[in-house]
Amino acid sequence: MAVNLSEPEKVYSIKGINLATAAAGIRYLDRHDLVLIEISENASVAGVFTKNKFCAAPVQLAKEYLSKTTPRYFIINAGNANAGTGKSGLDAAIEITQLVSQEMSVLPTQVIPFSTGVIGELLNVDKIKTQLHTLHNSLSADKWLEAAKAIMTTDTVSKAISEKVIVHNQTIHITGICKGSGMIQPNMATMLAYIATDLAIDKETLQSILSESVEHSFNAITVDSDTSTNDSCMLIATGAANLEFAELDKAEQHEYLVMLNRVMQKLAQSIIRDGEGVSKFVTIKIMQASDFNQAKLVAYSVANSPLVKTALSASDPNWGRIMAAVGKCEDDNLDLSKANLLINSVQVVSDGGLDKNYTEKAGKLAMSEDEIEIMIDLNLGDSHYTVWTTDLTHEYISINADYRS
Amino acid sequence: MAVNLSEPEKVYSIKGINLATAAAGIRYLDRHDLVLIEISENASVAGVFTKNKFCAAPVQLAKEYLSKTTPRYFIINAGNANAGTGKSGLDAAIEITQLVSQEMSVLPTQVIPFSTGVIGELLNVDKIKTQLHTLHNSLSADKWLEAAKAIMTTDTVSKAISEKVIVHNQTIHITGICKGSGMIQPNMATMLAYIATDLAIDKETLQSILSESVEHSFNAITVDSDTSTNDSCMLIATGAANLEFAELDKAEQHEYLVMLNRVMQKLAQSIIRDGEGVSKFVTIKIMQASDFNQAKLVAYSVANSPLVKTALSASDPNWGRIMAAVGKCEDDNLDLSKANLLINSVQVVSDGGLDKNYTEKAGKLAMSEDEIEIMIDLNLGDSHYTVWTTDLTHEYISINADYRS
Repeated sequence: MAVNLSEPEKVYSIKGINLATAAAGIRYLDRHDLVLIEISENASVAGVFTKNKFCAAPVQLAKEYLSKTTPRYFIINAGNANAGTGKSGLDAAIEITQLVSQEMSVLPTQVIPFSTGVIGELLNVDKIKTQLHTLHNSLSADKWLEAAKAIMTTDTVSKAISEKVIVHNQTIHITGICKGSGMIQPNMATMLAYIATDLAIDKETLQSILSESVEHSFNAITVDSDTSTNDSCMLIATGAANLEFAELDKAEQHEYLVMLNRVMQKLAQSIIRDGEGVSKFVTIKIMQASDFNQAKLVAYSVANSPLVKTALSASDPNWGRIMAAVGKCEDDNLDLSKANLLINSVQVVSDGGLDKNYTEKAGKLAMSEDEIEIMIDLNLGDSHYTVWTTDLTHEYISINADYRS
Repeated sequence: MAVNLSEPEKVYSIKGINLATAAAGIRYLDRHDLVLIEISENASVAGVFTKNKFCAAPVQLAKEYLSKTTPRYFIINAGNANAGTGKSGLDAAIEITQLVSQEMSVLPTQVIPFSTGVIGELLNVDKIKTQLHTLHNSLSADKWLEAAKAIMTTDTVSKAISEKVIVHNQTIHITGICKGSGMIQPNMATMLAYIATDLAIDKETLQSILSESVEHSFNAITVDSDTSTNDSCMLIATGAANLEFAELDKAEQHEYLVMLNRVMQKLAQSIIRDGEGVSKFVTIKIMQASDFNQAKLVAYSVANSPLVKTALSASDPNWGRIMAAVGKCEDDNLDLSKANLLINSVQVVSDGGLDKNYTEKAGKLAMSEDEIEIMIDLNLGDSHYTVWTTDLTHEYISINADYRS
């Protein structure tokens, strides 16, 4: 069902990162569902987490520990989100970090737990405990693809991306994995992403780089407008390449960041390509908005409109719905009298009205592609924003309505 | 398909209002699709319109004319929304008001046009023109139900509500009709509502009464979060009962307003009961919020969550999705640690966690009803808000995706 997305075949290892996977049988009995990621001592780690106030126990702990010290281990389980589990859930998450810290001889605060899967069920710590020694003994640098598979829940394809870039006469690598398919699965939660690079970047810079990059990648995707209880995105700079971000000149920094953003965007897009019930990969591009907030507001209004999404699934060039979704945004500076709408380069609306040369046939043809770009040029200013989304299909309803019932 | 909604059988006439319907064949060839409403000379008229910036030509004209003078006629057509039609659409709407003004011997600005139906097609003025004389000759006070039928587009049931209340020893009547089934139909637009009373209310008071009442009726419903290009709600006070709102004491005013709000809410709810693909009528009640905006934000976040709506259609007591939809609201004062969640009086969440006495069986039983009340008590303050919504079903996708394709 995924749109133009296949299993990743090869990614670069990142010096300073080791990974291991194991089968803890938390929910899935026939596959690995537990991941340990080891981070070298002098690495920097940055994180971005869900803003959902109903956030899960491991997310609460991750935020706290990350602010206190530099993590040495991530422990990730799939099949149970440890969300909506109250104090017992928090106790379970704390116990897991203690167990890993004993096994690996670090402080408990240097271990960050992540969980993804069913909401509202208590996580069985013993199942994880029995696998820690196995994980310890099987850590190696080349297990990124195994880790990508082990963190899947209802994903249909595992997700890993790798890039390298030569800056300052040195080859720098970036590798990332993620999981996610709907903002919340049938009763599963969530999106997780782990990206590592061998460049050295101080923690503060790393956090600002991550926050900026997330804004245009993981925060620029929507399946169904529902943010989840467990969303986490972690960026690690191991520094193993013995080259510092601060040493690079402006042009080199830019070149590196372009590559990082590319990895982040491809990972984020892979979640959309594997979105629940997806039949189209849709790019909503807002151009020449008055300001950044307007561009983002309009982009999400179109991307989250059920009527636009159902029209997309039907390959129906229903431009009235798109313009109505733009128009419903509450923004006093929004004026549609100069707006243009293009669907896969076919001009549909000019200056706020139907383009004179537009034909329903051309629109229908453009909408029949499995990759659709909806470009809305507001002609109001210099700001732009792009969001990636899915269409809304019967399959989405089946996955989300019929699964538990 | 509508949930607990049947054809209205009888409504009170309102002295000072006459109505007529005719078959103009704008889109539907086998029914009446044109309505003329005549308003007595000394009536007050108030209106609330869509805030969508892509609003239709008749809405632009209605706002302008209403600010200039007191309307004497409404002319309403179903089958064509005259939206997204640019200058030609505005010219058509102006021409219609001129034709009605000539037929009825009033000023063009005293005629307000309303259109509902297909977006993006030019309205055929001639088809309306040929029916104006017929409309003129068939005006009568008892045609509310005929008018309710004539303004339908893809509604499956016509919508009319009537109430009377004795205040100041006099019987005052309120009668309203409306149409609407999704915020935008397959490629149809919209919600229209017309309410009249024989009480005398000055224009300024009438507008503030309408705005306040709309906030808790037509602005408190959502099928799919999509606001439309043509939404309009008009309130007429004919004064034919020779009793003035200003003469009433506080208690009497309150009694009258309760009845008016009841008519408004019942009309609004009838749109939800007849919502696209609806199988459940859902009330989202937010209690003890920090402030009004928080209550409204949370209510709409739950009501518009596709994951909550698909769970509702499956009678799945998926409380994690409901709490996650509450938690995703961006409000710094929102704290879920004291929140309670009740589904049709079954306590599911207490103090932010799963209630100890809750059983999945009890939750499932509560969710199997066709009328569901989701009550979220935030325990943060004194504000409350209620929204009415539908579930999200395969039928919704079929109506909106398959219709044009």
